[in-house]
Amino acid sequence: MEQTAKAGQRLLSHDECLALLRTKYVGRVGYIDGDRPVVVPVNYRVDEVGAVLFLTAEGHKLDAAAEGRKLCLETDDSDHLSKSGWSVLVTGTASVVPQPAAAALAQELRLRAWARDVSRTQLVRIAPDLVEGRRLGSG
Amino acid sequence: MEQTAKAGQRLLSHDECLALLRTKYVGRVGYIDGDRPVVVPVNYRVDEVGAVLFLTAEGHKLDAAAEGRKLCLETDDSDHLSKSGWSVLVTGTASVVPQPAAAALAQELRLRAWARDVSRTQLVRIAPDLVEGRRLGSG
Repeated sequence: MEQTAKAGQRLLSHDECLALLRTKYVGRVGYIDGDRPVVVPVNYRVDEVGAVLFLTAEGHKLDAAAEGRKLCLETDDSDHLSKSGWSVLVTGTASVVPQPAAAALAQELRLRAWARDVSRTQLVRIAPDLVEGRRLGSG
Repeated sequence: MEQTAKAGQRLLSHDECLALLRTKYVGRVGYIDGDRPVVVPVNYRVDEVGAVLFLTAEGHKLDAAAEGRKLCLETDDSDHLSKSGWSVLVTGTASVVPQPAAAALAQELRLRAWARDVSRTQLVRIAPDLVEGRRLGSG
């Protein structure tokens, strides 16, 4: 855990993190594949209890979810002119939402795959253990 | 390794990946902290031999670099209207560039910390073992 505020930073509350998370729809999922970290872009949605949902294809990311390993979802925004920014990181155990509930939920949340990737048909849900965020600069 | 093209995807060559990497300056670094993946935004630059450089603060990310553990840097772009996108992922062993070479190199590369984070004074270099990328949709 690296959750300590440094000079010029402000740690965000849980509610601030969730509010910022809901302002975006593109994030990056991080997972562990053997000894290496992997990061890939996803479209995501946040449900009413603060869980993060995204679509993925068969592969290591889905395996990590199916095996209940930890995944994270990061999103951020920065403004070059004002030299400010924020980032939010949700970490938790992931699970695969079974069909047909997955298809209905994705439709309800208007969730589409990143760049309309047709291979991403599996809905993964990260139940957050940890929600962290920070804001930097004047923004 | 998940480097297989799926329907509607095109794997990018090493040169295409490097060329796209050089079109951006904000990416996300991924590293492993115990059993969890961590993803944080950074400003980065690519040097003439294709290594990725970014500034960081004291903490787990720097520890991972100092211990020679694997880090990755992801960047991407997507166009909502054309439903297309690309992503590039550089994975490798990281090292901390010693001072005073670090300060001179950061200046030469015009590298500043993400959101002007004043605590990020350590220059980390990822020597790429693996450069992967894909393009989706019509873009």
